[in-house]
Amino acid sequence: MPTATATLSVSFAPSKKPHLSFCPFGATSITLTNFTSPPIRRPMTTSAVSIEKETVISERPHTFLRQTDGEDNGSIRSRFQSMILEMQESVCGALEALDGAGKFKEDAWTRPGGGGGISRVLQDGAVFEKAGVNISVVYGVMPPEAYRAAKASAADQKPGPVPFFAAGISSVLHPKNPFAPTLHFNYRYFETDAPKDTPGAPRQWWFGGGTDLTPAYIFEEDVKHFHSVQKRACDKFDPSFYPQFKKWCDDYFFIKHRGKRRGLGGIFFDDLNDYDQEMLLSFATECADSVVPAYIPILEKRKDTPFNESQKAWQQLRSGRYVEFNLVYDRGTTFGLKTGGRIESILVSLPLTARWEYDHKPEEGSEEWKLLDACMNPKDWI
Amino acid sequence: MPTATATLSVSFAPSKKPHLSFCPFGATSITLTNFTSPPIRRPMTTSAVSIEKETVISERPHTFLRQTDGEDNGSIRSRFQSMILEMQESVCGALEALDGAGKFKEDAWTRPGGGGGISRVLQDGAVFEKAGVNISVVYGVMPPEAYRAAKASAADQKPGPVPFFAAGISSVLHPKNPFAPTLHFNYRYFETDAPKDTPGAPRQWWFGGGTDLTPAYIFEEDVKHFHSVQKRACDKFDPSFYPQFKKWCDDYFFIKHRGKRRGLGGIFFDDLNDYDQEMLLSFATECADSVVPAYIPILEKRKDTPFNESQKAWQQLRSGRYVEFNLVYDRGTTFGLKTGGRIESILVSLPLTARWEYDHKPEEGSEEWKLLDACMNPKDWI
Repeated sequence: MPTATATLSVSFAPSKKPHLSFCPFGATSITLTNFTSPPIRRPMTTSAVSIEKETVISERPHTFLRQTDGEDNGSIRSRFQSMILEMQESVCGALEALDGAGKFKEDAWTRPGGGGGISRVLQDGAVFEKAGVNISVVYGVMPPEAYRAAKASAADQKPGPVPFFAAGISSVLHPKNPFAPTLHFNYRYFETDAPKDTPGAPRQWWFGGGTDLTPAYIFEEDVKHFHSVQKRACDKFDPSFYPQFKKWCDDYFFIKHRGKRRGLGGIFFDDLNDYDQEMLLSFATECADSVVPAYIPILEKRKDTPFNESQKAWQQLRSGRYVEFNLVYDRGTTFGLKTGGRIESILVSLPLTARWEYDHKPEEGSEEWKLLDACMNPKDWI
Repeated sequence: MPTATATLSVSFAPSKKPHLSFCPFGATSITLTNFTSPPIRRPMTTSAVSIEKETVISERPHTFLRQTDGEDNGSIRSRFQSMILEMQESVCGALEALDGAGKFKEDAWTRPGGGGGISRVLQDGAVFEKAGVNISVVYGVMPPEAYRAAKASAADQKPGPVPFFAAGISSVLHPKNPFAPTLHFNYRYFETDAPKDTPGAPRQWWFGGGTDLTPAYIFEEDVKHFHSVQKRACDKFDPSFYPQFKKWCDDYFFIKHRGKRRGLGGIFFDDLNDYDQEMLLSFATECADSVVPAYIPILEKRKDTPFNESQKAWQQLRSGRYVEFNLVYDRGTTFGLKTGGRIESILVSLPLTARWEYDHKPEEGSEEWKLLDACMNPKDWI
C-alpha cells in the first residue's frame, strides 16, 4: 500500500486563539474560533499542518493510539478513544436493530506514525437511505506560529512544530421516509503535546461537538423530545450549557446564501476548555450517550408513515440544502476536501439522493412552508 | 420592492493583475489569474466590491445599459449586450424545439443604478431535466487597490473607487437521458471605466468564457464532434487558441478532492485582452454561435436511447460530482453564494437530481470506468 504525506490547511491570526477544527471523517484543520461566537471561516493566513496519508487495513486494530500513549493508562486521550469506539458500536447496533434489513459495512485505516479510523456505512437499508458512523484518531503537527499565537507571552519561545492529537466520532443518518428526520452528531477531543523547549508550559486541550436534527416535516412532539434530551444532558453539567449551545447550533448550521438554517438545531459547542477536563469528558460522553434515546424513538414513530411522491421530492429538496451546507460551509468537510482527508469517509455525510428545483416556493401556510419558516426563525422548542 | 446594497468579495495581490471573475447568474467577483495558468482560488487579501441589489421586474427591458452608455452607439459594451441577448434567444429557441414539450420560464430583474439580468429555465421537459440560460449585466465598483495593482506605475495615482461594467451569458443544460451529455457554456466581457483623475490612462477590458461537455457515458464520435466544433471556432482566429484553451478547460474543471475532471472538457479562457478588441468580440461571438451546432446534433442522436435504472443512477452519481465541482470550486458560483447574487439564478446550474453512494467503484473496463478514466487522464479527442 502506498503511503504519502498529506498536507492540511491551517489558518490563524495573531492575538486570537488558534483552533484545531476536526473532521472526524478523516481530516483535521486549524481555524480561529471564539468560544462564544460561531466559527470564522475565512483563513487570515494559511500554512501547512502535516499528517501522514492513510493506509487501508483489512482488520480493525485494538487501538489507534501510539504505543507511547499507552492504551489503558487512564489518560484523556485513551479514555476518549475508548468512549468513541464504544459509541460507534452501540449506535451502529441500535441503528441496525431499527433498520432490520441493512447491515453496516466497515472500512478501517491506519497512519504509519499512529492514528487511523473506522468508517461504518449502512446504505439502502429498509429504514435508512444512508447512515455513516465514523471514528478517527489523528496525530499531526501544527506550525509554530499557530501554537505561539495561542500563548500570551510568546517572546521567549523557540519556534518549532507543535505535535497534536485529535480524536472524534462523527455521524450523519439519512432515513428514507420523508417524515423521519436526518440526524447529525459529532464529538471530538484535541490536545497539543506539552512543548519540550519550554519546561512547565502546559499542554493545550479542548472538546467540541454537538447533535442536531434536520427534518423535512415538523412534528412538534418529535422536535420537543429531541431538544429535551439535549437539554437534560446539558443540565447535568451546567444550566448555562443548553441555552448557550442551542444558540451556537442555530448560528453554526446557517446556510448564509439561503438565509436559513439547514434544520431545527440541537446543540453545538467547540473550543471547550474552561471547565475541568474530567467534567468535560463526562459531558461529551453524556451527549454521545444521548444520541440513541434522542433519535431512535422518533424514527420508530415515523419510519413507516405512508408518503407520496411529492413529499419524497420535498425531502430530496431539503437534502439538496444539506449538500449545500456541507460542501459550502461545514468546516470539517471543506477543510477535509481541500487537504487530503479520506474522501469517501468525509462525503458519506451526503444523502443518497438530492434534488434542486428552480425557484421552488412552498405555498404559504403549508407543512413545507412551516419547515422553511422554522429554519429562518429558530424557535425555543422546550 | 425593497432595494439594498449587496457586497461582493474581491481578492487581489500587489504585482499581479487583478481580475474580475464573472458569475453571469447574477454576481461578480474579482480574483487573481494569470492568462496562461488556471485561476488562483484563494483570496490573498479581501475587500469589498459593491453593486446594488436586484429588483424583480414583470417585463424584460429593451436594454440593461445605463442611458449614458447609449444603446446602439457601437461600443463594445453595447454590442456585447446585443450578442448575449440574441444568443439567449437563439439557444433557448433551439432547445425548446429539441425538447418538444418543455417551455422556458423567464425571470428578469434590474438594478437601480443600471444593469440587471434575465434568467430562463426549462424544467422537467421531455428531453431536459433542467436547462438554464441566463444573461446578466453588472455595473459595480472595485476598490482602488485592485485597480492600482493592475497598473505598472501606480505611484502618481490618487486612490479612488474604480467603476466597472460586466456582462455575460451562462448556461447549464442537464438532459434526462443518461446517454445525453450535460453542457455548460459561459461568455463574458469586462471593462473598467477610464480613470477620471488620470488623464489619458486607458480603460481596462477583457473577455472570458468557454463551452464544455460532461457526459455520463462516452460516445467517441460525440466527443470528437463537440471538440471539432470548438477547434473550428478557435482556428478561425488563432491556431494557438484551441490547444491552449482546451488545456485550460481540462485544468479548470478539476475536482481536486476526487483527482478527476468533472467531464470531458472543451475550451475555457479568461482574462483575454492581448488581442484586438474587435477580434476578441468576434471570437466570443463565434464561440457562442458554435454552441447549438456543437451540442444539438449529439442530443438528437442520444435523447431517445433506451436506458435502465442502473444507467440512470450512474448519471445521477455523475451529477453529484457536478454539484461538488460547482459548490466547492467554481469561481462564479462560490463567489456568487458568498456575496449576495441572485441565488436561484446562480444555482440553476445544479442538476434536478443527484446521488451519492459510499465508495462507488465501477468495474474495471466497464463503460462507467472508461468515463472515470477519461476524467482522470484528459485525451486529445481530435
